Amino acid sequence: MKTIQIGILGFGVVGTGVAKLLKEKKTILEQRTGVKLELKAIADIDTQRDRGIDLGSTTLFNDANQIIDDPDIDIVIETIGGETIAGEFIMKALESGKHVVTANKALLASRGNDMIKAARKNRVDLAFEASCGGCIPIIKSLRESLAANTISSMSAILNGTCNYILTKISEEKTEFDDALKDAQALGYAEAEPSLDIDGFDTAHKLAILNSLAFGMSVNLKDIHVEGIRHISLQDIEFAREFGYVIKLLAIGKNHGNHIEARVNPTMIPASDPLAHVDGVMNAVVIEADATGRIMLYGRGAGMMPTASAVLSDIVDIVRNIISGTTARVPVLGCMEDHIQTLPILPVADLHTRYYLRFEAQDHSGVLATISGILAKENIGIESVHQKGRKNNGNVPVVMLTHMAREESVQKALKLIAKTDAVSGTPVVIRIEELFCEEH
Amino acid sequence: MKTIQIGILGFGVVGTGVAKLLKEKKTILEQRTGVKLELKAIADIDTQRDRGIDLGSTTLFNDANQIIDDPDIDIVIETIGGETIAGEFIMKALESGKHVVTANKALLASRGNDMIKAARKNRVDLAFEASCGGCIPIIKSLRESLAANTISSMSAILNGTCNYILTKISEEKTEFDDALKDAQALGYAEAEPSLDIDGFDTAHKLAILNSLAFGMSVNLKDIHVEGIRHISLQDIEFAREFGYVIKLLAIGKNHGNHIEARVNPTMIPASDPLAHVDGVMNAVVIEADATGRIMLYGRGAGMMPTASAVLSDIVDIVRNIISGTTARVPVLGCMEDHIQTLPILPVADLHTRYYLRFEAQDHSGVLATISGILAKENIGIESVHQKGRKNNGNVPVVMLTHMAREESVQKALKLIAKTDAVSGTPVVIRIEELFCEEH
Repeated sequence: MKTIQIGILGFGVVGTGVAKLLKEKKTILEQRTGVKLELKAIADIDTQRDRGIDLGSTTLFNDANQIIDDPDIDIVIETIGGETIAGEFIMKALESGKHVVTANKALLASRGNDMIKAARKNRVDLAFEASCGGCIPIIKSLRESLAANTISSMSAILNGTCNYILTKISEEKTEFDDALKDAQALGYAEAEPSLDIDGFDTAHKLAILNSLAFGMSVNLKDIHVEGIRHISLQDIEFAREFGYVIKLLAIGKNHGNHIEARVNPTMIPASDPLAHVDGVMNAVVIEADATGRIMLYGRGAGMMPTASAVLSDIVDIVRNIISGTTARVPVLGCMEDHIQTLPILPVADLHTRYYLRFEAQDHSGVLATISGILAKENIGIESVHQKGRKNNGNVPVVMLTHMAREESVQKALKLIAKTDAVSGTPVVIRIEELFCEEH
Repeated sequence: MKTIQIGILGFGVVGTGVAKLLKEKKTILEQRTGVKLELKAIADIDTQRDRGIDLGSTTLFNDANQIIDDPDIDIVIETIGGETIAGEFIMKALESGKHVVTANKALLASRGNDMIKAARKNRVDLAFEASCGGCIPIIKSLRESLAANTISSMSAILNGTCNYILTKISEEKTEFDDALKDAQALGYAEAEPSLDIDGFDTAHKLAILNSLAFGMSVNLKDIHVEGIRHISLQDIEFAREFGYVIKLLAIGKNHGNHIEARVNPTMIPASDPLAHVDGVMNAVVIEADATGRIMLYGRGAGMMPTASAVLSDIVDIVRNIISGTTARVPVLGCMEDHIQTLPILPVADLHTRYYLRFEAQDHSGVLATISGILAKENIGIESVHQKGRKNNGNVPVVMLTHMAREESVQKALKLIAKTDAVSGTPVVIRIEELFCEEH
């Protein structure tokens, strides 16, 4: 039986998971591919720590070059993470003619185009199913299963940390800070949680998925990103009263000559399939012309779910090696010369519906002031709710708008803040009803 | 640019959808594959009816052999349906060295093993993503994305007709017969609806998915099948009171040396992700060791969703042809010599929980009679609900059992029916709580 040799760069959580699966699922992997997959070596700067795995004949190096320079190794798995050293190793591996599997969304989002070019030039496979949505087969579905579809929009929960925190606030009626502390205690959030809770991790994933869904080169820098730090129990409870749930969504829409791409806390109807995706779970909803709505749901992080996705890439590459082919499926699903550079809509030009919450002074004329300014900026109000709950002498006034332009909303809010009608900064949450109930 | 020629057998709903996508998505398909896909011919006994599609250079034959015998055609799409003539054409096409794509679940469930053998012998691809779950990429996910997983169970809504009817009864508080008529009026159910509502269509799909999930040869005949004709509004409402929803599920479980495989109306907790899958939508929940729970959701039927899945198979095969490979992925996901013949558990040996509804006579001692017989058969009662609603002088008594053996339950029900405690036939609905909420 032919043997294909594999090396792993980075022996952290994901690297350990991949090593475990390669060892524990040896027989299944042989039955699926007809060849032996051998984990020849792992490289990590820490060669001492016990990862609770019997390495057997696998060598542990403290230098990644020992793997990249090994002519016997066919496939290099990068699980180091981060954007500097990992990128250098991947580029070197691709240039050495190794197939590369990575879960590194930050790197793909910032340097993906170069990596794709290098893979193409060196006629090797570059695969990254584990980079978005953990074990959810979203990359394969976009590149292969939806091949005959034009995708109009994508809406996804791609960060388990944020989804856990929002679920926690909602279910246990706690506040953001406590929910974050709880997530940290459980290992769902980092001690320095910004990458997750400020929406950057979700944006990295959206940059990758946009390029696959819309046949465009990877573009991270133009994606509008907002995190969840400002989401309070009060807003989650108002949302619930109006039949909505608040989720941190990655949203990508194809408007033909430009793309809408943003990460923001979003109010979605309770009947939206994403509204039931709770805790650390992830899900992607796709609207495409032939399929209609499709949803893929699963664990977006964690040692074994991520390793499962890495293994699906390894098996794909092994099947390519056996078949004597590489780049059987183009990295972004389209042939190179058809990848477009589609502009992303500036957020100021966004049209959507809004939830606005003001801390209104408790005197007459307040509503007239607020609604007068909104009207002047052509922002139609669908409903107003003034609730009796007083906060520091103020009364929360909540408004749901009709479709409005972001720039006008921001301008109106600034003007309203200058009046004596309200205190503090108004809360703005975008509403998304694209994916309402379908039977 | 190289051209790959395609022929379609059967110009009905699905055949028309496939022809439409091949024509309308010509450019996208070229961008994805780098070759031209040409629909050379379609065969149907009716060559006259207008299908609302401009055939252009495509020839319409009334004899399938004109396609199967054409040496220029590389890929044959079978969309005739049914088990006789379609099977002959597929076997002949495979033996003529054509790659075959089919959506024919009935045929695959009954003759799949022979078709797989013929494909292997003739070194051609046999693909059937459209056979289960319409546009949901379930076949590809099982064969490729979950390659390193051991699947412990699968639970799926695979028949849109049944799911529409059950949703309708539940939401509009109607009865089965009216909901069926409504489904027929909307084109969701056939005039002769047995294939759908008696569970056979779901069983065909389960036979296919079992073989992919558990690496076993296709086995339809041992699957236990129950339909939804006996499901009443009353039971759906009782279920709701206890926090459950009733769905027609295909259930496949891996017990190591045997498989549990059954189609039956099932009470699942309202928190189960399948509980929110309403109307004609389909979904598959998979529990696997590395991924944990995964769910794939989408349209399980209809012209374009089904055609989308057929096209994903065509693109796969085209990519194989370009790469000079066939059978790159084994048809059932495992190499031939590892496909097992796993026995399916006889339903009498099933262990699960039960919902039992009796029409009890309104006199004392009834509960003692029923519970006495259940106790004698070792069936533990978790809860009893005697509701005040009288039906023809009878009172419905509902019991939820602990885990019990099917044979004992059936025996007890027969003994109970012989007493004067109850009228009519008790209603039995199995409860499934494997997939309860996970955060």
